[in-house]
Amino acid sequence: MAHRPRDVSRVVETRLRVRYAETDQMGVVYHANYLIWMEVGRVEYCRAAGLRYREMEQQDHVLLTVAEANCRYLAPALYDDEVVVRTWVEQAHPRMVRFEYEMRAAEDGRRLATGYTKHLFCSPDLKPTRLPSKYFKEFGISNG
Amino acid sequence: MAHRPRDVSRVVETRLRVRYAETDQMGVVYHANYLIWMEVGRVEYCRAAGLRYREMEQQDHVLLTVAEANCRYLAPALYDDEVVVRTWVEQAHPRMVRFEYEMRAAEDGRRLATGYTKHLFCSPDLKPTRLPSKYFKEFGISNG
Amino acid sequence: MAHRPRDVSRVVETRLRVRYAETDQMGVVYHANYLIWMEVGRVEYCRAAGLRYREMEQQDHVLLTVAEANCRYLAPALYDDEVVVRTWVEQAHPRMVRFEYEMRAAEDGRRLATGYTKHLFCSPDLKPTRLPSKYFKEFGISNG
Amino acid sequence: MAHRPRDVSRVVETRLRVRYAETDQMGVVYHANYLIWMEVGRVEYCRAAGLRYREMEQQDHVLLTVAEANCRYLAPALYDDEVVVRTWVEQAHPRMVRFEYEMRAAEDGRRLATGYTKHLFCSPDLKPTRLPSKYFKEFGISNG
Repeated sequence: MAHRPRDVSRVVETRLRVRYAETDQMGVVYHANYLIWMEVGRVEYCRAAGLRYREMEQQDHVLLTVAEANCRYLAPALYDDEVVVRTWVEQAHPRMVRFEYEMRAAEDGRRLATGYTKHLFCSPDLKPTRLPSKYFKEFGISNG
Repeated sequence: MAHRPRDVSRVVETRLRVRYAETDQMGVVYHANYLIWMEVGRVEYCRAAGLRYREMEQQDHVLLTVAEANCRYLAPALYDDEVVVRTWVEQAHPRMVRFEYEMRAAEDGRRLATGYTKHLFCSPDLKPTRLPSKYFKEFGISNG
Repeated sequence: MAHRPRDVSRVVETRLRVRYAETDQMGVVYHANYLIWMEVGRVEYCRAAGLRYREMEQQDHVLLTVAEANCRYLAPALYDDEVVVRTWVEQAHPRMVRFEYEMRAAEDGRRLATGYTKHLFCSPDLKPTRLPSKYFKEFGISNG
Repeated sequence: MAHRPRDVSRVVETRLRVRYAETDQMGVVYHANYLIWMEVGRVEYCRAAGLRYREMEQQDHVLLTVAEANCRYLAPALYDDEVVVRTWVEQAHPRMVRFEYEMRAAEDGRRLATGYTKHLFCSPDLKPTRLPSKYFKEFGISNG
């Protein structure tokens, strides 16, 4: 019961524009790039929550490693499309956080993809560690 | 019963070497690159099965779009590691194929990741289509 | 004398934020990514000049292939840095355009890199072609 | 006169296969990827010269930063092409090394691109340093 996200309803929106480099010869965005967009969304989620991920890495030596990534591709994103990435924390406790994502085309709102990433908090030698409690709030973890 | 993979036991191994470009500042391979390695494994699977994917695209205008991708990260891959990608078809019928993958470090056999990708056969305008029966064998689809 | 850029002084600024995916294990941005940032700058240059590159490709079937790319790396860009890409046309005539770029860190103005890319206008089969005169203005080519 | 490459004629060939991820919507390899292929060639050059770059980084804390990169694109590389990267040291002294590259299609020998990268030897804090003399031989630097 403890460690439930305090604020499950916080959803952070980020916008990005599809780069030519991100397309492939099918004429659409190459599928691995959606994982990079999820990273962009995750970073902006953290920033919006008051956490600069760079500082957490450098000052507190806590890294957010990826334990699992999943993406369902619903409609192709095209070169120069503006994409809206919606990011939220679905689940979090002091050792793990799971983000979910929804990506839409800004122009017509069509849903491009949904996905999630599951992360472990780790020390710089990549061993699992416990998130310092000063960061609980940012990930929506209660002190309960 | 129809369309079961004929030869579920065919597993194709591909080797690749981790590029510096594929690492990130955590000192390990950035997680999205594993999806690219799965693609490398998939292409070699097709080649081993007697199918050149390039020809299927160009001559028969059948594309293999990605509907879902998943990866579980078990141990980090490092720069210059040789990685063995094992690829097999878990499920296939004339509209869909699902590949599974296991990635190991060649040197010590440690398991780096497992994953799957689910694909739809599509026409060049990216509408779902039916795989021409001449290709059934390569994907292990029976004519049953 | 003909075909000199009409407006050599137009410089377009674009901002982007360094992605984790763009770093390498040296802890800085992997060098090939600067070419992608140049592409981002180039696209925004075209947009600012009133040209949507996507339409030029799709409607007029004119592609801008890269004939040469060059980058000098002056100071490393770091994860989460905001980067300002300044882009301008150094030289242009109906068969070729050369863009130059300067990249700076937004925070402290330090110069990260300079570079150029030289492009040929091509048809979809990648044969060199002549830019339709309706686009001369956007690239600063005089009709003289 | 000192520090001239001892063995300017050593050319190392590496082979790689074009990945789908490396193509763009023009149907050819996206140009920034050639810089990654140069890195692949450079790593294999070092390996062939008896130097494991990973060890130089980890044990001797000498990094090879990129100061400049250049690529001239002669003919497009296509998905699934096998590419031969020829790499050699054009110039080297204890603070700098310049590699040159030629990339050809294995099938028909057509020249895809030529290029060079200029590197500085640096300490882990990315300050220029002097290459330890134990590595002179690998880069073709004379002790003269």
